[in-house]
Amino acid sequence: MMQVSEAEWTETEQLVAKEAFKKAYEREINALITQVRDSATSIVKLEDMWSLHDFLSARRHEIDGKYDYRYSVLIFVLARLVQEGWLKLDELKGLETSKLSKVAALSRM
Amino acid sequence: MMQVSEAEWTETEQLVAKEAFKKAYEREINALITQVRDSATSIVKLEDMWSLHDFLSARRHEIDGKYDYRYSVLIFVLARLVQEGWLKLDELKGLETSKLSKVAALSRM
Repeated sequence: MMQVSEAEWTETEQLVAKEAFKKAYEREINALITQVRDSATSIVKLEDMWSLHDFLSARRHEIDGKYDYRYSVLIFVLARLVQEGWLKLDELKGLETSKLSKVAALSRM
Repeated sequence: MMQVSEAEWTETEQLVAKEAFKKAYEREINALITQVRDSATSIVKLEDMWSLHDFLSARRHEIDGKYDYRYSVLIFVLARLVQEGWLKLDELKGLETSKLSKVAALSRM
């Protein structure tokens, strides 16, 4: 079973997960900011600007949905962050082995 | 009566109007591009980026609606462009006096 409720996360695990979550978020946001700043400098015509707008719309929607810190979905969220490169598996050290293997397995799917 | 149909625009007037419309459009778009490029360089956090996104959403909607080249609404569109500073009244030289006065009057409202 992949779903894990809050009760099944020890206090230490919650700290580890929160820290990792926050780190991934900051990395992704910073990468996005850099990307937006870069693409803004190369806007020369209206279509470029509307492309940036479309891009921001999509990313905002994605980020709003993705960073969902509920313990019932956290394994999936962490796995996705690992898969996308925003988080390294060893930054989840401190989680119990079964959670780590779930994250690892899901991140390879 | 403010509405003027296509039949009431001479060929010369249509040329003048098209040229003015195009000029205003290019000016507004270029100003907007400069503004977006500038504000993009000062993005430092997520909220700044979503502010830029909100700004682009609003401007895109406004611009899509504003630049409506139909002769039935053109007097209003030209007046608005004059009012907003994207067009000068004397760039409409070539339109008949009655159209020019309508545009001038509306642009001061």
